[in-house]
Amino acid sequence: MTPHNPRENPVSFAILGTGALGGYYGSRLHHAGYDVHFLLHSDYDHVRQHGLKVESIHGDFSIAHPQVYRDAADMPPCDFAIVGLKTTQNHLLLRLLPPAVKDDGAAVMMQNGLGVEDQAADVLGPDRVMCGLAFLCTNKVGPGHIRHMDYGQIRLADYAADGQPKGITPRMKRLEACLTAAGLPVVLEEDLLLARWKKLVWNVPYNGLTVVLDATTDQLMSFAPTRQLCEDLMLEVAAGAAAFGRTIRDGFIQQMLEHTEKMVPYRPSMKLDYDNRRKMEVEAIYGAPLRAAATRGVTLPRMQMLYQQLTFLNRDL
Amino acid sequence: MTPHNPRENPVSFAILGTGALGGYYGSRLHHAGYDVHFLLHSDYDHVRQHGLKVESIHGDFSIAHPQVYRDAADMPPCDFAIVGLKTTQNHLLLRLLPPAVKDDGAAVMMQNGLGVEDQAADVLGPDRVMCGLAFLCTNKVGPGHIRHMDYGQIRLADYAADGQPKGITPRMKRLEACLTAAGLPVVLEEDLLLARWKKLVWNVPYNGLTVVLDATTDQLMSFAPTRQLCEDLMLEVAAGAAAFGRTIRDGFIQQMLEHTEKMVPYRPSMKLDYDNRRKMEVEAIYGAPLRAAATRGVTLPRMQMLYQQLTFLNRDL
Repeated sequence: MTPHNPRENPVSFAILGTGALGGYYGSRLHHAGYDVHFLLHSDYDHVRQHGLKVESIHGDFSIAHPQVYRDAADMPPCDFAIVGLKTTQNHLLLRLLPPAVKDDGAAVMMQNGLGVEDQAADVLGPDRVMCGLAFLCTNKVGPGHIRHMDYGQIRLADYAADGQPKGITPRMKRLEACLTAAGLPVVLEEDLLLARWKKLVWNVPYNGLTVVLDATTDQLMSFAPTRQLCEDLMLEVAAGAAAFGRTIRDGFIQQMLEHTEKMVPYRPSMKLDYDNRRKMEVEAIYGAPLRAAATRGVTLPRMQMLYQQLTFLNRDL
Repeated sequence: MTPHNPRENPVSFAILGTGALGGYYGSRLHHAGYDVHFLLHSDYDHVRQHGLKVESIHGDFSIAHPQVYRDAADMPPCDFAIVGLKTTQNHLLLRLLPPAVKDDGAAVMMQNGLGVEDQAADVLGPDRVMCGLAFLCTNKVGPGHIRHMDYGQIRLADYAADGQPKGITPRMKRLEACLTAAGLPVVLEEDLLLARWKKLVWNVPYNGLTVVLDATTDQLMSFAPTRQLCEDLMLEVAAGAAAFGRTIRDGFIQQMLEHTEKMVPYRPSMKLDYDNRRKMEVEAIYGAPLRAAATRGVTLPRMQMLYQQLTFLNRDL
């Protein structure tokens, strides 16, 4: 696969939600020469005046005059719409997706949890939805100001309404070429559902437990009972995946544990949301996988308990 | 059963730990005319000078000159030693119990959790240990100053090293007579282990969840997911009891839930300990029952998760 030259191969992007994730990926794509359209809400006026600024471990850059929109209805239909909204905003998909996606384009659901592609398919139809899993450590430190601390890989998968693996599709390769040209590492996944459950292996223990126990990942990992609980929860996620015929091996779980042990002290996105009194993504990360497992007759007691606890803490946010 | 006249039927009591529980029951017994000896630690000087004061829903009273001790070695051996220490202090039993209990007397373990009689039996031998379960709502509001808000019932059971029910023994009736004379409601239990597991039905959900979720009982009960979690945890406690051949019926669990719903907003003792940065009784209420169940091959995942979470929060207290 050869990276595109964007001038020869014009591809357009809508960035739906220009936050820590959408802002970072969108800025990289723009910087690489692609035609990128940014949807903003509270930061619209600031970014229109002052542009976008990215401080990255790979070098800083800025965009003086990005193409910005306050209303999705004003955006041109694009080849790919990168959906970087929090899942707590998914009631907006009905309004945001249709104008931003070409008839032969696709929404790329870069959100947490399970079932978000189904939500997009309800709006766009099953053929105009893809999945992008971000392994990224960025923060929005101010309006239009993004700090990129680590990582950046995107794992792409394509969507089928029946939940079966779609394999590697042409549009996955096309998108990969764009992202690679923008300096972003990409992995292509043949099986969306397996990729999403594997991401939950990390998200389920660390997002919830850092909130409930007011802790960072390193504190959880350096104390034997909570390290064990993280592993117990990971094994339940694997049991959920197994209910759908997807195998997550114990070696993968051990790798996640060891990787997290070596990471710098980290507050996952749910912990940042909670500390900032923002609604947490409890339904996407916990509710949806639990309900999916239940349809196969599988109960995951620890994950369910964490869901109940987080639902309680989420109730007044 | 006729209440004693203490003058005709002298019975002596050692109160090991004159806090909210020991201070209340000891004061009632003293007030009824029994020979009561109070062991104190930090409050010794204050109580020696100013006595004990009880504010009770049944009427206030005080004891100007209680028999107080700083060191158990100075106490006279008594018929009954009421053990009101927190279980986090049970390393002291080895020093406190032997001087305070007559050869034909008994320690009455009024502590939370499971296995505390075994600990006392290790010190005194199996024949000098009884169990008293307090259903009491008192606070120590200052040195030697106890506020009695509600309840007060004591459920007595006798101890057998093999865990078998001892039935109603003569010394249970003798102690019942004293407590009744002191105005304290008593229930005699034939089976210590069943009584302790039944008390855990309440203690396991409410002590731990009020700490982990920074909540009061009414907040947990008025929100459907946490009410369900309380019930889930109660059912696990029943499964633990069942591993020892003890049946806790669903009707009992429903009764506990409904009772707690009707209670005033309440912070259980573990929540008070946590809020006051005191070590929590995590081992007695969670660790010991979980280990007991494990010896019968029974795992209780939600209770274990709560244990892991509480152990984490307890680590620096």
